[in-house]
Amino acid sequence: MQMDFRKMANCLKIAILAPITWRVPPRAYGPWERVVYNLTEGLVKMGHKVTLFASGDSETSAKLESIVKKPLGETSWPNPRAWEHLHIANVFEKANNFDIIHNHLNYLPLIYSNLTKTPVLTTLHGSAAFKETHLIFLKYKNSAFVSVSNFERSYLPELNYLSTVYNGVDFKAFPFSKKLENYLVYTGRLVKEKGILEAIRLSFKTKIPLYLAGIIQPSVEGRKFFEKEIKPHIDGKNIKFLGNLSQKKVAQVISKALAYVFLIKESKKGEACPLSIIEALACGTPVIATRNGPLPEMIQSKVNGFLVNSLKEAVDKLRQVKKLDRRKIRFLARQKFSQEKMANGYLNCYQRVIKDKGSKYD
Amino acid sequence: MQMDFRKMANCLKIAILAPITWRVPPRAYGPWERVVYNLTEGLVKMGHKVTLFASGDSETSAKLESIVKKPLGETSWPNPRAWEHLHIANVFEKANNFDIIHNHLNYLPLIYSNLTKTPVLTTLHGSAAFKETHLIFLKYKNSAFVSVSNFERSYLPELNYLSTVYNGVDFKAFPFSKKLENYLVYTGRLVKEKGILEAIRLSFKTKIPLYLAGIIQPSVEGRKFFEKEIKPHIDGKNIKFLGNLSQKKVAQVISKALAYVFLIKESKKGEACPLSIIEALACGTPVIATRNGPLPEMIQSKVNGFLVNSLKEAVDKLRQVKKLDRRKIRFLARQKFSQEKMANGYLNCYQRVIKDKGSKYD
Repeated sequence: MQMDFRKMANCLKIAILAPITWRVPPRAYGPWERVVYNLTEGLVKMGHKVTLFASGDSETSAKLESIVKKPLGETSWPNPRAWEHLHIANVFEKANNFDIIHNHLNYLPLIYSNLTKTPVLTTLHGSAAFKETHLIFLKYKNSAFVSVSNFERSYLPELNYLSTVYNGVDFKAFPFSKKLENYLVYTGRLVKEKGILEAIRLSFKTKIPLYLAGIIQPSVEGRKFFEKEIKPHIDGKNIKFLGNLSQKKVAQVISKALAYVFLIKESKKGEACPLSIIEALACGTPVIATRNGPLPEMIQSKVNGFLVNSLKEAVDKLRQVKKLDRRKIRFLARQKFSQEKMANGYLNCYQRVIKDKGSKYD
Repeated sequence: MQMDFRKMANCLKIAILAPITWRVPPRAYGPWERVVYNLTEGLVKMGHKVTLFASGDSETSAKLESIVKKPLGETSWPNPRAWEHLHIANVFEKANNFDIIHNHLNYLPLIYSNLTKTPVLTTLHGSAAFKETHLIFLKYKNSAFVSVSNFERSYLPELNYLSTVYNGVDFKAFPFSKKLENYLVYTGRLVKEKGILEAIRLSFKTKIPLYLAGIIQPSVEGRKFFEKEIKPHIDGKNIKFLGNLSQKKVAQVISKALAYVFLIKESKKGEACPLSIIEALACGTPVIATRNGPLPEMIQSKVNGFLVNSLKEAVDKLRQVKKLDRRKIRFLARQKFSQEKMANGYLNCYQRVIKDKGSKYD
């Protein structure tokens, strides 16, 4: 086997296949697109030749390739799934230009993966939590996968996992704030399973206001949950709804919060490595989180927050939250969840996959 | 350009990509799958090396390739569309084994068509009648298309049409019956746009019983239409519902009917070359049909039936139907709508596409 030293040591030609539900970076909600943005910028900084396949209004330091001008989340086309396939076909038609295709678009691109010699690496982003994906993932179980937490592998242990690469953020976008204000915060999808109602109860019991920010699920069920179960509590004082905020505004809100609250009830709903928690930690904000899913990999009690088993415990631990060293929280987060750490983790995987695929074909 | 004389003159290696909604041939309803079956058998008889990509329970003289054991119409998997894509990927992964891929599965396979050098020919089967397909078809408008009637091209004139190839049937399966009985017949999908209610009215006005056979659309709307608008008329005597019949039983019913009735109201609902009409004509049964869509290409008034503009005219023409020469109807149908005629028509297209694609790559 002849080694391509450009590939192994220096500059890789990398195709990043992003979702097209939201722009890269997302204007507001859109964690997969946000991770894709952070990774792409990280790889470009390292000197790689990166092509980002994303919606046409995306902003990137990489070369941009698009077949849709606007992301599907902002359009009302019939057949959105068909457009996803056109987007996927676009990268596979150009596969020979790349050393690696990095798939961030769930299982669909796997279906195309045997139609090219270019290796494909798939980041799951929690998608294997949904049983309807399993038959498809299992057909391609020998492809190359990355989990974004060790916990994520429990959703579908049969896949060929190369590594766990935690999501990473750009720390410049999440400043440290010396001034704190008296409120708790949750940002993300405003759905029941994220423990929003528990967070509201925690706020009532501790008399510390709660600020909510994020996206109301556009499904009938999602809207109903917001209208019937959350909205009645919003009084603009004790419980505030700030809307679906940009990253900049999210950073401002979480950096001044007493604590970030993530009281999910059960772990089987796609939680894999919540970006909002990383963003909170990046600001130095402690996290009060339920002890399940990937949370024990992210939170160390008494260091960067508290893992709790009940609302009662959350109330109790919240009293100790001011004692935590917020600078240390930020420092530790930077070691584990930085853009650079993530980009290096993926680069390591790219090199392994390229080497493996090379040996199959040479 | 070097010509491959095996390809141009003799035996072609043909991949037929069938839908997987129903088995090939369908157990009952399933016109696309029925046409695929008729074509595949025709091509095998001509000596070509045919591989049929279809559900695993299909019956064929060709080689069968399947990724699903049961057709999607008989299963309740989540993600049926994903399984269609696995089925499509299966043929494209093996594309190098074929001189041509003949797509009978709507627009999705076009998305894969640039990932192989093997030429792809697409039969529309009326799919371009639905506007939500247009953006996708237009992206691949320079691919090679066959319309199943000249009328069909009006749905989307911009595509690269090579030819019109009418659907064909195996005449052995549709015997001529000397004994007639006093009833009208309609077979096919029992949906409003097929003019079922008009057929019922025609039956009432002429006092000739009407036999209905076919599939009740499984959608909420489709069931509602059947329950509320058709079922109340079914008395087992004047209006009979025979169920979703096998081809053999359909042939028995239509061959003895006074006339086949097809009173569609408007043409923009995907009518392209109704197989049920061809089956009626094959039996020698005259057709009373609305003068629109592809019907004027199929029916010649006073020869093999009557084209009508109103219910009144249908009543009037029905009186003359017994005067038509049923042997002649069958004879004419065999010239235009036979399995052999269809297979030859497609073979001609295959050779043209192979020649064109060859010149692009050589």
